[in-house]
Amino acid sequence: MPVQPSYNGRMNIHPVDQANRALLTKQLLSKAMPPNSLGSLASLSIELGLMGASRLGSLSLLLFAGDHGVASEGVTHSAQEITWQQCINFANGGGACALFSSLNQVDLTVIDVGVSHRFSSTDKVVDAKVAFGSRNFLLGPALEEHACKKAIEAGRKSVLQAKKKGCDSIAFGEMGVGNTTSASAVASALLGLHPSLLTGKGSGLSDEELEHKIGVIEQALMLHPQRDPFSVLCNLGGYESAAICGGLWQAAELGLPILLDGFVVSSAALVAARMEPHLVDYLIPCHRSAMSGHQLMLEALGKKKPLLELDMQLGEGTGALVAWPLVRLASFILPDMTSFSLAKVTDSTSVLQELGLV
Amino acid sequence: MPVQPSYNGRMNIHPVDQANRALLTKQLLSKAMPPNSLGSLASLSIELGLMGASRLGSLSLLLFAGDHGVASEGVTHSAQEITWQQCINFANGGGACALFSSLNQVDLTVIDVGVSHRFSSTDKVVDAKVAFGSRNFLLGPALEEHACKKAIEAGRKSVLQAKKKGCDSIAFGEMGVGNTTSASAVASALLGLHPSLLTGKGSGLSDEELEHKIGVIEQALMLHPQRDPFSVLCNLGGYESAAICGGLWQAAELGLPILLDGFVVSSAALVAARMEPHLVDYLIPCHRSAMSGHQLMLEALGKKKPLLELDMQLGEGTGALVAWPLVRLASFILPDMTSFSLAKVTDSTSVLQELGLV
Repeated sequence: MPVQPSYNGRMNIHPVDQANRALLTKQLLSKAMPPNSLGSLASLSIELGLMGASRLGSLSLLLFAGDHGVASEGVTHSAQEITWQQCINFANGGGACALFSSLNQVDLTVIDVGVSHRFSSTDKVVDAKVAFGSRNFLLGPALEEHACKKAIEAGRKSVLQAKKKGCDSIAFGEMGVGNTTSASAVASALLGLHPSLLTGKGSGLSDEELEHKIGVIEQALMLHPQRDPFSVLCNLGGYESAAICGGLWQAAELGLPILLDGFVVSSAALVAARMEPHLVDYLIPCHRSAMSGHQLMLEALGKKKPLLELDMQLGEGTGALVAWPLVRLASFILPDMTSFSLAKVTDSTSVLQELGLV
Repeated sequence: MPVQPSYNGRMNIHPVDQANRALLTKQLLSKAMPPNSLGSLASLSIELGLMGASRLGSLSLLLFAGDHGVASEGVTHSAQEITWQQCINFANGGGACALFSSLNQVDLTVIDVGVSHRFSSTDKVVDAKVAFGSRNFLLGPALEEHACKKAIEAGRKSVLQAKKKGCDSIAFGEMGVGNTTSASAVASALLGLHPSLLTGKGSGLSDEELEHKIGVIEQALMLHPQRDPFSVLCNLGGYESAAICGGLWQAAELGLPILLDGFVVSSAALVAARMEPHLVDYLIPCHRSAMSGHQLMLEALGKKKPLLELDMQLGEGTGALVAWPLVRLASFILPDMTSFSLAKVTDSTSVLQELGLV
């Protein structure tokens, strides 16, 4: 029996101060509109207020890429070379993530942590390579413990650099053929649920192929019985997931609001939150993926109702990119929306408050 | 028995050419991503393509304001003066609509068509006044036929002016204490449904007060038995609804995509679509209001699934404002997203197409 992997990195995430909630809610009620008018945006404005985030203006999307040994088990139709080809495409302005980033003025960085390809410096892909892809987890642990830790550090470093460049909020994206298989395996292990509840058709499988994908994950769960989050990450995860874990911790330590979306990123967030529960205070659930099981992951993170449900399932951080303008709007409500008194508008809400309707 | 009102204004809306749908869908499949990746945004990109709308960049929000005689029947807690106070607030950068417009670079115009107040020229509210509020529809028709037509023309003219200023898409907002009562009455009359299915608590009513509001509408429906859309608009509508009707027709005639949101605007769209069914080709459903019955209105317009469901219920066009960045993104997918061949990414979707999975 091999020694169980263990992580002893320092973590320093401050939980938000829930005592401020009442004050922020009162502030919201003073705004010149009927109470309960802004629904989810109003709730989000309070969550952001608790994080100390106000007038957000600069989102950085860190897109980590890695290949997956399990791709060779027939769990996807996508050829493995698509991982590196898309990295180059994204880094040079192509693909949905780059198009949406450019339209929404988001700073996109494509970072190689585990792609099975040697990029050239003209490719514009940031080099943080730890390995040329993970091991097929049917043949052994996906990531070596030390390599997993290196990827975590790469994620932390990327967030520190983004913060240095001036971002005030952060999102994570991923690219990696086979990575939804890994994400489903990780989530199944951590939630103790059968993989059929957490496995989707990814980039397009038939019913039979989905059955096969689920079977591969079942096998992996038996081969790797450990259930502590760091072991799960090493055994079943990917380099991009490990980097995202580190990035999530670093962002929360810096107090940055994190725009969470996607099946793969959410599975990494599950690992990260199991290891450091205060992380969830900084997560803004942006989009419910069309992939089966994503809702279960969101619920396990205590984030039942994401901002958007657009039936997207692309990854690349696209859910966060699409939600970004909404998060930005919400961050201006408390500091900048006019109050009844400032706007010289009659405040009829006091009647409602007396009647106990608010 | 009075003569039934009738509208004989010219309308000239071209339906979109559904024959283009197959070509646009093929174009979408050539983009460098797995098929069905972008869910509602992908569907929207095709609807926009059918309208001939591409790379949208300039939304104009026309916010029409009017007062409602029925407000005196105890159907709202809001004091009537809030209508004119908010108009001034909005026109001078206050309120959610102005904040969101400024953050999302939307051109907001506040237009008085029926407010019970004399604005001064320094108020920045555009003067298109037809009357000082509608009549209480329990005492007679809400709008005189000729006044209703004048408001329709004011709506048309506002859209023409916005188009002249360079907008490539349009949204409508409204302000008017009591206008959800009018909107519920209009929708109940047109859909033939009991008002309890189409009436919400507006800016905050108790259960008993909601019952009273429904009772007022029931009475109005008996007093005004005509069910043709123009009579319904005159009898139960408001000046802002009439202006929005005209604006909707004008926008569709110009081929402008219309960002539809809100309980009151949707009831105006019901009137407009009953009188000119091709209108619906240009409507993009942006947000499902938290107000009971809004979903029924959207379904009657053939727009079952709006982009957003944020539990907002503010009016002012805020749903359209929040959805605008998403609509804009969608309008860039077909013209600007890289294809597999251009991005030099292996196209695995041909396999899926052979397997009939796409």
